[in-house]
Amino acid sequence: MKNYKWLLFLPLTLVLLLVCSGTSFAQGNGIADPLAAIADDQKYNRAIHIMAMLLLGFGFLMVFVRKYGRSALTATFLLVSIALPIYMWMKSSNIFGEHVSEIDCLIYAEFAAASLLITAGAVLGRLKMPQYILMGALFIPCYMLNEWIVLGNGLNLIPKGAVADTGGSIVIHAFGAIFGLGVALTMTTKQEMEKPIEADATSDRYSMLGSMVLWIFWPSFCGALVPMEALPHTVINVILALCGSTLVTYVASVGLRGKISLADIANAALAGGVAIGATCDHATFMGAIIIGALAGGLSTFGFAVIQTKQQRLMKIIDTCGVSNLHGLPGLMGGLAALPIVKGLNMGHQLFGIAITIVIAITGGFIVGKILPILGRKTEVYDDADEFME
Amino acid sequence: MKNYKWLLFLPLTLVLLLVCSGTSFAQGNGIADPLAAIADDQKYNRAIHIMAMLLLGFGFLMVFVRKYGRSALTATFLLVSIALPIYMWMKSSNIFGEHVSEIDCLIYAEFAAASLLITAGAVLGRLKMPQYILMGALFIPCYMLNEWIVLGNGLNLIPKGAVADTGGSIVIHAFGAIFGLGVALTMTTKQEMEKPIEADATSDRYSMLGSMVLWIFWPSFCGALVPMEALPHTVINVILALCGSTLVTYVASVGLRGKISLADIANAALAGGVAIGATCDHATFMGAIIIGALAGGLSTFGFAVIQTKQQRLMKIIDTCGVSNLHGLPGLMGGLAALPIVKGLNMGHQLFGIAITIVIAITGGFIVGKILPILGRKTEVYDDADEFME
Amino acid sequence: MKNYKWLLFLPLTLVLLLVCSGTSFAQGNGIADPLAAIADDQKYNRAIHIMAMLLLGFGFLMVFVRKYGRSALTATFLLVSIALPIYMWMKSSNIFGEHVSEIDCLIYAEFAAASLLITAGAVLGRLKMPQYILMGALFIPCYMLNEWIVLGNGLNLIPKGAVADTGGSIVIHAFGAIFGLGVALTMTTKQEMEKPIEADATSDRYSMLGSMVLWIFWPSFCGALVPMEALPHTVINVILALCGSTLVTYVASVGLRGKISLADIANAALAGGVAIGATCDHATFMGAIIIGALAGGLSTFGFAVIQTKQQRLMKIIDTCGVSNLHGLPGLMGGLAALPIVKGLNMGHQLFGIAITIVIAITGGFIVGKILPILGRKTEVYDDADEFME
Repeated sequence: MKNYKWLLFLPLTLVLLLVCSGTSFAQGNGIADPLAAIADDQKYNRAIHIMAMLLLGFGFLMVFVRKYGRSALTATFLLVSIALPIYMWMKSSNIFGEHVSEIDCLIYAEFAAASLLITAGAVLGRLKMPQYILMGALFIPCYMLNEWIVLGNGLNLIPKGAVADTGGSIVIHAFGAIFGLGVALTMTTKQEMEKPIEADATSDRYSMLGSMVLWIFWPSFCGALVPMEALPHTVINVILALCGSTLVTYVASVGLRGKISLADIANAALAGGVAIGATCDHATFMGAIIIGALAGGLSTFGFAVIQTKQQRLMKIIDTCGVSNLHGLPGLMGGLAALPIVKGLNMGHQLFGIAITIVIAITGGFIVGKILPILGRKTEVYDDADEFME
Repeated sequence: MKNYKWLLFLPLTLVLLLVCSGTSFAQGNGIADPLAAIADDQKYNRAIHIMAMLLLGFGFLMVFVRKYGRSALTATFLLVSIALPIYMWMKSSNIFGEHVSEIDCLIYAEFAAASLLITAGAVLGRLKMPQYILMGALFIPCYMLNEWIVLGNGLNLIPKGAVADTGGSIVIHAFGAIFGLGVALTMTTKQEMEKPIEADATSDRYSMLGSMVLWIFWPSFCGALVPMEALPHTVINVILALCGSTLVTYVASVGLRGKISLADIANAALAGGVAIGATCDHATFMGAIIIGALAGGLSTFGFAVIQTKQQRLMKIIDTCGVSNLHGLPGLMGGLAALPIVKGLNMGHQLFGIAITIVIAITGGFIVGKILPILGRKTEVYDDADEFME
Repeated sequence: MKNYKWLLFLPLTLVLLLVCSGTSFAQGNGIADPLAAIADDQKYNRAIHIMAMLLLGFGFLMVFVRKYGRSALTATFLLVSIALPIYMWMKSSNIFGEHVSEIDCLIYAEFAAASLLITAGAVLGRLKMPQYILMGALFIPCYMLNEWIVLGNGLNLIPKGAVADTGGSIVIHAFGAIFGLGVALTMTTKQEMEKPIEADATSDRYSMLGSMVLWIFWPSFCGALVPMEALPHTVINVILALCGSTLVTYVASVGLRGKISLADIANAALAGGVAIGATCDHATFMGAIIIGALAGGLSTFGFAVIQTKQQRLMKIIDTCGVSNLHGLPGLMGGLAALPIVKGLNMGHQLFGIAITIVIAITGGFIVGKILPILGRKTEVYDDADEFME
């Protein structure tokens, strides 16, 4: 630890860097139109809902690791605090794409933070705090590059609006999960393969708290930026998809395991929200339930069957199973847009998905190579080596 | 368990049934008017607040049973997930009453889910998961029948708008509680009478988390559908009623028991919200405080005095004491409308209350007779027989 | 306990007093203008967010005391329930300043309740429930006097609008903390000096729940009453300040202690929100990050270094360290307005801060002298003497 004390100043330096360079930091133009001000104010409510998802939702969902709760919550705080300013600063510097309003910029930054938290879930318990921070600082530019190419006509590869991904199945969920797998590829040690990840009744209940917060506010996540008149249909689609995945997760969990696994419930119940993202403003109510039900089944199958195979064969530990909750359902959601969204160009949609996979796995792999310069966590899945008692 | 494995497919079947039959599933007409779109958007925020009450609020309030936390939270997820699609599908099929807008339909569905969760509280810990789901599927039509008759001029029994029940004291709270007692009537076994319902410091704190979430968002529950200009007065009424019940609950708990019972605080403090429902948009601020204070006293008396008598004499176990929190204060709230709401027809109000009692107790009793076809929970108030460790 | 049983009727009496005297209780004028109704409705959402901060936020942050969780949460319920009606009743009686709209009155009352909860944090674990209630009833008039003088031109001392304190760094945070120190001055006994305040892994995680709820909704606290078109910039300032304080808190905690203290993270991470209050609608984004970062450092220094000195030298125990979280950063925020807010009169701002300090310390000291008439808590930092098992 001693030799790395200077690393503590990393976050401080980043903040100072931002401060010094930041004269161009986003300053939205004043709003004259009262209707526009009202619309911004309503987006603000959704921005706060998403903030609840980031901190309470992702944070407590990760508290399921029995002895690592203090760390998981602190890491969540730090990841959000590094992601938001960097995203907002880079966005307002027009590096990746054009200027947006202040409140839109906040919401896009929250999307990036959500994706980062998904990545963190893959390696949870195996990084030290400075490594989470460094990972966040490196993740955001990769995320923005992909977002810009897939959704913002970056490098003129895909026309703007040609990829259906309103709620971020592809660029937020799948990207974050695959990036996390990339990081995990280079990180997993023998000690980590052998040490079990333990939960108990208290950590399970905390984990359900996080899961429920995510469930509750997911409609605001998907509907954050849709036009006012499309909001009701969009949010009900998201709710119905979540109902579908929750019911099917229960059935699949008992069917595949004999008894209910709380980890399945806390995670796979949310797969409907992940998968409906790409089509949340286009699907019919029936379509939304079906997508949610399929995603719940797919995700539970991932947790119950694929995960152990993945660990044994690929030697990757994905602590929170993000590939099962965000990876597979995210990709499924992206593909579900093909039959559902009318007039969608299949080539663009598939190309967008492919680009996302390539940037995520490459970015994650490189970041995973960089992080060990800050050393290694001595006791995995445990608060003790970093926190005072 | 083995013989009942096919029952797991019950929820799946229900979802599929909905999917197949659901061409008429609610599709709101597009909104042209910007003011209407804004109003819908603001209702949406309240709909999300209510969702927080359903999952975090009711869910965690029920975690007070020490060894049954995983089950209580999973049951909450399943009950909400079965209630919302069934309600919305039946409502949009125009079986009970006329068409409403998408966002109104969501809010009405959430009201039904709240009532169902109250019912579940009465038999908490004594049903298996498939039984909760089946109970939900049977409850919703009964609830809708009552809602239609009391508030929607169903069967031409009561003129529309003749019963004062904006926040659902009668049709949501009292209905759910009495329905739950009906179910409990036929369910309670000797084993259940003998096994104590245990709480501990951790489960108590989770329970207060649920209670506080309910307290916080209760104004949005009562004000969900009131016109925009009536909202401020309505929500302050609800808050003042809750303040009144909270203070009196503390006084009554110490007065009746000698020391504070946390169960009283977590539950009876909310009685003001239950009781103000019927008059939340009509009461003066003073009236609201008084109703709240009386409801808090009544509810605490229920928990401290009536509950044990009820168990011994009527051989009913009401796990969460829903008759004390939702039953008595709900009926009190419905009756309080008589002096408070100007121009209210006493006959209609009393008839509405009477219908509610009759449908609830009958429906609950029949459902309680049906549920045992799915067998019985082997170990009551315990996660162990259904969940993996 | 026995001799004090009559004290239980204190809260009841207060409620009745309000009821009897309250014909003048605030009744806002009806709203004809649809835009005004929309603005009120949007303020309502922020009012609910603040309510979440009061109950879940302050409440659970105080659950860090391992054996005192039931009491901390119950006290939070009671303090909020006594503060809101008294404030709203006094405000509508025009004792301190002029009439405001219903929803504004609610938000001002919530601000007062927040300040009261800060005060309670200083003496947490050493008061009995009736003492919390009495303290609340005595605190509110002191708070309103100060608020009236500093912000409302009370006694014609400071022109209206001359003190910059939109988000309450001075009149809410610093006032509450200093008032709390005043109460603690006269309360701290030898037993209290010797008994350690213990946390454990579960109480720490509850405490982080509270901290995160405060972090999430802080933008709504500071932006509650700003005009609609200033909201986006204001709330982003608050978020950036919180990001700054969170990152610096981590660095400072490890730097000063060698390992992370979870108490630092849960508390000092919020110091950015406290400090940005005075300038949240004036600072640039860069200014906001810098203020947040400095406040995080100052607050962590307070927890890590000043607190033990304060205890030893001044013989004051500040249970939650409110002087480090709300006192110092609040004063810092008030002073930061001098360079940041254009055209601010330095004399008025400093005079406002000075008045706040004087009223708070005097009021707190007097209240601290009054509270012991209700006896003393027999077992400090423990639920056992007031709660049933």
